[in-house]
Amino acid sequence: MDIAELARRTAAGERRALARAITLVESARADHRTQAIELMEALPKDREALRIGLSGTPGVGKSTFIESFGMMLTGRALKVAVLAVDPSSTRTGGSILGDKTRMDRLARDPAAFIRPSPSQTHLGGVARRSREAVALCEAAGFDVVLIETVGVGQSETVVAEMSDVFLLLLAPAGGDELQGVKRGIMEIADMIVVNKADGDLKAAAQRTCADYAGALRLLRKRPQDPDGFPRAVMVSALEEHGLDRVWQDLNELTDWRRDNGFWDRTRRAQARYWFHQEVRNAVLAELETPQARAALAGFAEKVASGDMAPGAAASGFLSELGMRRAAK
Amino acid sequence: MDIAELARRTAAGERRALARAITLVESARADHRTQAIELMEALPKDREALRIGLSGTPGVGKSTFIESFGMMLTGRALKVAVLAVDPSSTRTGGSILGDKTRMDRLARDPAAFIRPSPSQTHLGGVARRSREAVALCEAAGFDVVLIETVGVGQSETVVAEMSDVFLLLLAPAGGDELQGVKRGIMEIADMIVVNKADGDLKAAAQRTCADYAGALRLLRKRPQDPDGFPRAVMVSALEEHGLDRVWQDLNELTDWRRDNGFWDRTRRAQARYWFHQEVRNAVLAELETPQARAALAGFAEKVASGDMAPGAAASGFLSELGMRRAAK
Repeated sequence: MDIAELARRTAAGERRALARAITLVESARADHRTQAIELMEALPKDREALRIGLSGTPGVGKSTFIESFGMMLTGRALKVAVLAVDPSSTRTGGSILGDKTRMDRLARDPAAFIRPSPSQTHLGGVARRSREAVALCEAAGFDVVLIETVGVGQSETVVAEMSDVFLLLLAPAGGDELQGVKRGIMEIADMIVVNKADGDLKAAAQRTCADYAGALRLLRKRPQDPDGFPRAVMVSALEEHGLDRVWQDLNELTDWRRDNGFWDRTRRAQARYWFHQEVRNAVLAELETPQARAALAGFAEKVASGDMAPGAAASGFLSELGMRRAAK
Repeated sequence: MDIAELARRTAAGERRALARAITLVESARADHRTQAIELMEALPKDREALRIGLSGTPGVGKSTFIESFGMMLTGRALKVAVLAVDPSSTRTGGSILGDKTRMDRLARDPAAFIRPSPSQTHLGGVARRSREAVALCEAAGFDVVLIETVGVGQSETVVAEMSDVFLLLLAPAGGDELQGVKRGIMEIADMIVVNKADGDLKAAAQRTCADYAGALRLLRKRPQDPDGFPRAVMVSALEEHGLDRVWQDLNELTDWRRDNGFWDRTRRAQARYWFHQEVRNAVLAELETPQARAALAGFAEKVASGDMAPGAAASGFLSELGMRRAAK
């Protein structure tokens, strides 16, 4: 593969080149990895998309929201890419990107690019590949990159580390039937978007939105939040109501962050974070060999059953593998 | 030092031996580390305290709460140990354990043992030593171990990993003056305890308690929670009201967890967690050498400024240090 040519065509915004580039960064083969690093280095580094992280459990209308929101953006002459981060290989029915046809209007829009999730079970691997796929879309000249996750395990945190803003999509809850927001996500959400504010659910959406607005006010303000953020709003993706308001709010938020230095600071911190993650993962790969895994499992059992203290077990493991003990 | 003798006396509940044992596990010296591992292995492994994690910002009355709650427990013929986990070396005035005299009644109680926080800036080091100090108190026959943190950075998460139950202590908020709960902490709190429900603040405490009870109901139920948990309650540590109720609630919670297998499961998972942390920290210590740190800082700057992609920088770093590249 001619990497310089692939870089040139990706940078020119050619969709087939972009798709091939993403396939390359997703590959686990060592030679592909070397080419992927070369490719990333060859791409322009001065382009910047708004990277929007988006989470929501199955049933909240995430595919409808992404399609309506995406169409609203392409209607404003913006180029939109949609990527998914999903550490589980068995995708459930409610998740959008295993099936592009669920967003067929957006999939046919020439200003949009939709990429299904790589099927993988290893979150670390998915994380790096997704982060590089985001960077590829950015280099290809997209204005907005939507990064979707169903929120399995730690995936929201991972998506937040590659996003400029993070949206949590919820459905209205009726009366006592309170829906569960995964606890950690309140830490990273910049906006809570209550979908399905239409028809019979409109009143319930209003109540749900007010409840979450109240809950958000009980949380400590983060330095990167202007007054009024994180914000809870309601939309109807189906009737295409409220989507402009979400876009306007996001721009209010990001303008403030740019003006106050948080945009650049976050981007720099994220770049450092991913670099350190790459290094750590490489070093920790020592623990992934079959021999190390077998020894780890054996010592972990002794620790879990109470036969051995964690410190002694770690010491025993490191001697067994011939690794040096940490100095402290 | 005769480690067998120290183990014997610690196991016999001798306070001076326990204090020396904790000093030993807190030491960063390599020979002390070896002795500490030997000590931990020599101690009885069949004793079990209730380990209560406790967080609260300065001003919520944490020292008063710990003292009143501790005295209530020793009044029930229970032996109580109090430890602190604080990653910051500069302790602020609101924090209890830099100054034992702030809890002088409890400090003089023969059934109580209070250990100030080791002064350290490195959370990883504090974490391991605190975890081992908890295990020492448990082996010394204490019934309850209170592990306090002011909640700097990730310290609540670290404390939660060494606790059976986790309490968040809050002060009443008046009207619009909403206090901030650090977002991640909602994920780990088993009970929210609103203190200072006395005098002029009583009505505000009731409102604050109701607000948080409402916020807790909006969060997804965790498998390890029986109905009604996490729970928000109010107490007056000053007037010693409501402390029995907290103790009763904690027992209701832990009885349920024991009966439903979550107690053992959590303890086993925590032991495994600490073992893996020890191993990871040892392996990652390769990145802590002066040479590695200098190289890391250099590459991190290139990444932050956008001159280099994270993958290429990691690859460059690993070659420079002569480490092997990760296979994936």
